[in-house]
Amino acid sequence: MSRPTMRQIAQVTGLSEAAVSFALNGKGGVSPATVTRVHEAAEKLGWRRNVAAAALSGARAGAVGLVLARGRDGLGNDSFFLRLIAGIESVINAESQALVLQIVETLEQEQETYQRWWSERRVDGVFVVDPRTTDTRPQQLKGLGLPAVAIGGTPGFGLPFVGVDDAAAMTVLVQHLAGQGHTDIAHVAGINDLLHTRRRVEAFAAAAKKLGIRAHGSYLTDYSEHSGLEATEEILALPERPTAIIYDNEVLALAGLATFNAHRLDVPQDMAVVAWEDNIIWTAIRPQLTALRRDPTVMGAEAARSLLELMAGTTPEDVQMPTPQLVVRDSTVEGAGR
Amino acid sequence: MSRPTMRQIAQVTGLSEAAVSFALNGKGGVSPATVTRVHEAAEKLGWRRNVAAAALSGARAGAVGLVLARGRDGLGNDSFFLRLIAGIESVINAESQALVLQIVETLEQEQETYQRWWSERRVDGVFVVDPRTTDTRPQQLKGLGLPAVAIGGTPGFGLPFVGVDDAAAMTVLVQHLAGQGHTDIAHVAGINDLLHTRRRVEAFAAAAKKLGIRAHGSYLTDYSEHSGLEATEEILALPERPTAIIYDNEVLALAGLATFNAHRLDVPQDMAVVAWEDNIIWTAIRPQLTALRRDPTVMGAEAARSLLELMAGTTPEDVQMPTPQLVVRDSTVEGAGR
Repeated sequence: MSRPTMRQIAQVTGLSEAAVSFALNGKGGVSPATVTRVHEAAEKLGWRRNVAAAALSGARAGAVGLVLARGRDGLGNDSFFLRLIAGIESVINAESQALVLQIVETLEQEQETYQRWWSERRVDGVFVVDPRTTDTRPQQLKGLGLPAVAIGGTPGFGLPFVGVDDAAAMTVLVQHLAGQGHTDIAHVAGINDLLHTRRRVEAFAAAAKKLGIRAHGSYLTDYSEHSGLEATEEILALPERPTAIIYDNEVLALAGLATFNAHRLDVPQDMAVVAWEDNIIWTAIRPQLTALRRDPTVMGAEAARSLLELMAGTTPEDVQMPTPQLVVRDSTVEGAGR
Repeated sequence: MSRPTMRQIAQVTGLSEAAVSFALNGKGGVSPATVTRVHEAAEKLGWRRNVAAAALSGARAGAVGLVLARGRDGLGNDSFFLRLIAGIESVINAESQALVLQIVETLEQEQETYQRWWSERRVDGVFVVDPRTTDTRPQQLKGLGLPAVAIGGTPGFGLPFVGVDDAAAMTVLVQHLAGQGHTDIAHVAGINDLLHTRRRVEAFAAAAKKLGIRAHGSYLTDYSEHSGLEATEEILALPERPTAIIYDNEVLALAGLATFNAHRLDVPQDMAVVAWEDNIIWTAIRPQLTALRRDPTVMGAEAARSLLELMAGTTPEDVQMPTPQLVVRDSTVEGAGR
């Protein structure tokens, strides 16, 4: 099957190829009626702009990119990214943009990917996830002239961003646990130099201090099941064992629950548990888990809208997502989930 | 920052642009020493083949595509696809191929995507997932001349494939439950016209018949939490209630567990449960869940190898994955997971 060409459209409409080209490229010089006629014929023939030719002539690649540098193991049960991607797609599909996805192991490989995409003209813009305290990506992307939006960014990060108020959510969480009588609380956090980890770690310490609670940790992990198991074992071995643990994502919380199982510890009697990110998992199990709920699909959609704006030449407003909502269940208040 | 050009490589090496082009395109007519010199200079300058130009000149798009037509809600907790993608990436990254991912709601949108990708020269090949009993995709893709590999395919499907022996796995599963004394077993299956659903439904009926067990169902769903809840409620309302339920994926099994919770039913005393797809979730909860284990990353890697072969012009051998392994835990044999 051969691809339909402008020549075929010209033949079908009885117009010159130049007129067809002008109509399809919106360059003016042809009547609105002609434009309509050409577009109808183009649609009937299944004609599409050749992205290769368009990209070569300095136009768009017609695609946006997302690199996940979490490694394979960190992604398996992390529903956040799949939902984020679904949200991104819901916006870019409507604009006939494709999403190029790359999963790599390291930040260095992530940056090599941007460099390669840029030199190949593979994408017109990228989403930057997992912003870090020291991060050369904004500078790199500016140097390349590649539009970028940071997901989970902050005003100082150097890119337009969609932000989350982790600090407010953490404060609500610690207040909830304090209200349940806990005086010793541990925090199993994510990767040290991620901005959202820093925000949560600092808010955890500040809220505990304000409420006169002993803060254990924050214990840092790489978000893997293994690191979640290790952190939980460390906490259980503390001379004065905390009575509640906050886990920064689903994989870590699941690792915690597996560790409690192995130690025959009951939730919440022996240990209260809260997970960052709500999930159908938490209502399916016993005890049902208290969790922080937010909607990553909305976040993805907001980020996509910002990136499209940026690619169109206007600077998007930074977007602040609503504070994640605490959903209280059995793992912190027995009987709450029934 | 401007993209390095062949001209710059010519300047750096003191060669003609024609010689540089010949060396970079492997067209012969230049000495091996020159080829090495040119490649070294190209690497130093960060030169990359412009994918747009390459695609326009009839060469490769340098990308492969994957369309998921499960809708947003069906993907949230389904670790299969994220693992599959990680496996695909592990192979294509090494070949500097990009992955274009599209999430759509319907099969029709999936086929429109292939048409668009083809006319835009967006990808050089695609992975086809969720093969169906009546499926026009193989024919469509052949018509477009777009190389494609089916994940979960069979000999009659019409594309090279990576296959899974669902029937053997289901037989092992029913035998296990029969061995535990169950005489009434229900099956909550996936989408009716998916090939792997048909394989499981038929194997479930056949194994039950052979073992003299009453097969309830198979109950068909759309893999969503909601449909899993509904199917489980239907099963619990049966006049002669089964004592074991097999769920075709993680989301459905979680929906089942949530329903048992709501009805205050104990697993495995009131109901034995098995889930297709093993997951860290199943060892983290009480009771731990019996599950079928396979490795979607290996499946993705195999499919990627096959697709690259196909794109290189050779027909790949069909690959049969090992039969999923039954991991027995508390949800079918009390105390097995301790």
